[in-house]
Amino acid sequence: MTSGNFAVAQSGGPTAAINATLCGVIEGAFAQGRKIFGAVNGILGVINDNFTDLNKTFSNIDRMNLLKTTPSAYLGSCRYKLPDFSKGAEIYETIFDNFSAHGISMFIYIGGNDSMDTVSKLSEYAKLHKKTVAVVGVPKTIDNDLVGTDHTPGFGSAAKFVATSVSEIARDCAVYADNSITIVEIMGRNAGWLTAASALARSETGIAPHLIYLPEKPLSIEKLISDVKKCSVRNMVIAVSEGIRNEKGDYFSNLQCNTSHDEFGHAQLSGSAKVVENILKDEFGIKTRSIELNVLQRCSAHFSSLTDLDESVRIGKAGALAAVKCKSGIVMGFERIDDYKVKIIENNVSDVANLEKTVPDNFITSESNNITDDFITYSRPLILGEPQIITKNGIPKHIAL
Amino acid sequence: MTSGNFAVAQSGGPTAAINATLCGVIEGAFAQGRKIFGAVNGILGVINDNFTDLNKTFSNIDRMNLLKTTPSAYLGSCRYKLPDFSKGAEIYETIFDNFSAHGISMFIYIGGNDSMDTVSKLSEYAKLHKKTVAVVGVPKTIDNDLVGTDHTPGFGSAAKFVATSVSEIARDCAVYADNSITIVEIMGRNAGWLTAASALARSETGIAPHLIYLPEKPLSIEKLISDVKKCSVRNMVIAVSEGIRNEKGDYFSNLQCNTSHDEFGHAQLSGSAKVVENILKDEFGIKTRSIELNVLQRCSAHFSSLTDLDESVRIGKAGALAAVKCKSGIVMGFERIDDYKVKIIENNVSDVANLEKTVPDNFITSESNNITDDFITYSRPLILGEPQIITKNGIPKHIAL
Repeated sequence: MTSGNFAVAQSGGPTAAINATLCGVIEGAFAQGRKIFGAVNGILGVINDNFTDLNKTFSNIDRMNLLKTTPSAYLGSCRYKLPDFSKGAEIYETIFDNFSAHGISMFIYIGGNDSMDTVSKLSEYAKLHKKTVAVVGVPKTIDNDLVGTDHTPGFGSAAKFVATSVSEIARDCAVYADNSITIVEIMGRNAGWLTAASALARSETGIAPHLIYLPEKPLSIEKLISDVKKCSVRNMVIAVSEGIRNEKGDYFSNLQCNTSHDEFGHAQLSGSAKVVENILKDEFGIKTRSIELNVLQRCSAHFSSLTDLDESVRIGKAGALAAVKCKSGIVMGFERIDDYKVKIIENNVSDVANLEKTVPDNFITSESNNITDDFITYSRPLILGEPQIITKNGIPKHIAL
Repeated sequence: MTSGNFAVAQSGGPTAAINATLCGVIEGAFAQGRKIFGAVNGILGVINDNFTDLNKTFSNIDRMNLLKTTPSAYLGSCRYKLPDFSKGAEIYETIFDNFSAHGISMFIYIGGNDSMDTVSKLSEYAKLHKKTVAVVGVPKTIDNDLVGTDHTPGFGSAAKFVATSVSEIARDCAVYADNSITIVEIMGRNAGWLTAASALARSETGIAPHLIYLPEKPLSIEKLISDVKKCSVRNMVIAVSEGIRNEKGDYFSNLQCNTSHDEFGHAQLSGSAKVVENILKDEFGIKTRSIELNVLQRCSAHFSSLTDLDESVRIGKAGALAAVKCKSGIVMGFERIDDYKVKIIENNVSDVANLEKTVPDNFITSESNNITDDFITYSRPLILGEPQIITKNGIPKHIAL
């Protein structure tokens, strides 16, 4: 058992569930009767000795409940990459001095791929320099691209928002008798998990999206046009990842046909959906429009997945308890136990950091323009249930630092 | 009392509440023990004799409940403008022949500004040619730009989505320690009601949006830059209407700095938010991004306003009952009775059709970059309450024709 206090920080892009994980870490610390500090703006908060007292704030259960459904990162975030030991010895000394000054012996870092690099470096430094600080990573990312876990906290809520929005957009598209094509751009530069989740929009009232393109499979303009021709529906909905690439590996958003310049010479880069829109408008001459779901997919907490939030709390708590047990240099993960339960597992951070898990072939149809039933079976449980949203004056109530 | 059957149709852009109004019309017909036909794709359904039997479908209460929270237009829509009597006599004869063939003596048209033109022409034609068909308009539009009503059905739900999303976007923006500017583009070509509703995002946890620009007031680039300079917040959120114009009356989206062309000569027209983004990025050199809420603002029924849905049902039912009482050539509306109730009123269609109500001066600050407390008092009641959303497999269940 580690004695001493906890510190926790959040890093990387925000999600609708990262604060639920923070709840779990705080609950874990409370369950052990420990003090817990929140570092503001990720590891930068530790470097700058910018900590907030979480015991004081969250001894109030109402605040804790609000935190669970507040989107984005309560403690703030950063995109700071720690230097190598040789080049940044001072920074590491500052970090561990500041831990020491506050009696912190356990540090929980909630973040994505890049943040696990921080967990890796800090835990290794602690080991090398005999610092008694347990460093534990707890994953979060809407991208679902972390290895060593069945899925990531935050993905389920983003997937639910994407599926819900695409189902609503499909209803919107269906109202006019004229033919139309609507392209929905979904986040995911290299991994198409969230774009694949658009398939969860399908129900007895509609089969949209009719085509789904992921970054995992190259897409030529000819193939795109041929797919659309074959798909004879009146109001077509196409889901595309922001990171779709052509057969040469070039991002659609970087294609020549997208490198326009305005009168002042500014490059006007559009997203991949806008490029697809222009290609299809030219080819078919019918009403074509594109919609970017943009940051709404990661911050729309008002219709998040209860399964995701509950699991996020659980994995945060498990991370705190692992740290108490002197585990260090690990990243928590989910293992799926049949239909449908998860158990929490621990991975060595070296098996997780800086790696990326893309959508496997068995989740993508052989035509590379849709997803398989196996993907639906995999992802459906992750979006089930809705949390109770506390509202005030007609909008969801949040909590802020 | 009119004998005979009802017909109902939906027209114009979809909303999250237009199907709730359809519920109300159907309930009104049922309450009178009448048959009710739905014309598919607005007035085109009447012209093409394309009717569906609503008694059969909606005698089932579960289907009626689903209809109330299904976004978009269940019966489909159209953007068809009826010709003048002199030029389109045949079309009018077809319409009234088809009414007659189905014993239809009451026609309810749910729609916006343009659709009220149809109500006007049909009711006038009926009067001139002694056709015993009562024609009643029931308003809907997210734009809230109809005259003769305190507000329009559909506005409250769209306003709630805008306010909720802006509050979530503001949380998302606040996570990084660096300065940033986020511009949110909201629908409204000539009337800024929905953009003004972004102010409903403000709460004890945040004052975003920090600047609000409506089409009602010209905005020079110099004024925009000066406003941003004066507003010293770290993570600024600016709400702009799609229809903001400069001091010469040119739409931002048509400005020279936005008329870029790609390699193939296609004009790449961005929305107003993208133009503002480019202007501010050039001026301030900090992280600047733009977000278009796009069609989500009119189709996001998963977090709609219960007040809006309930009022939409009520006004639909009142429209049906007015038709039974032989009222024709009228458009239903809301009159606000102090704090906060509405009563349903009837307007002559000639006082409503083809007119547009913009945001009045007392709702806009003298600096033209924000809204007043009077607007908050006006709009807050319209977004209150949330309906129970029926979900299946993790997404809202809809009903389709």
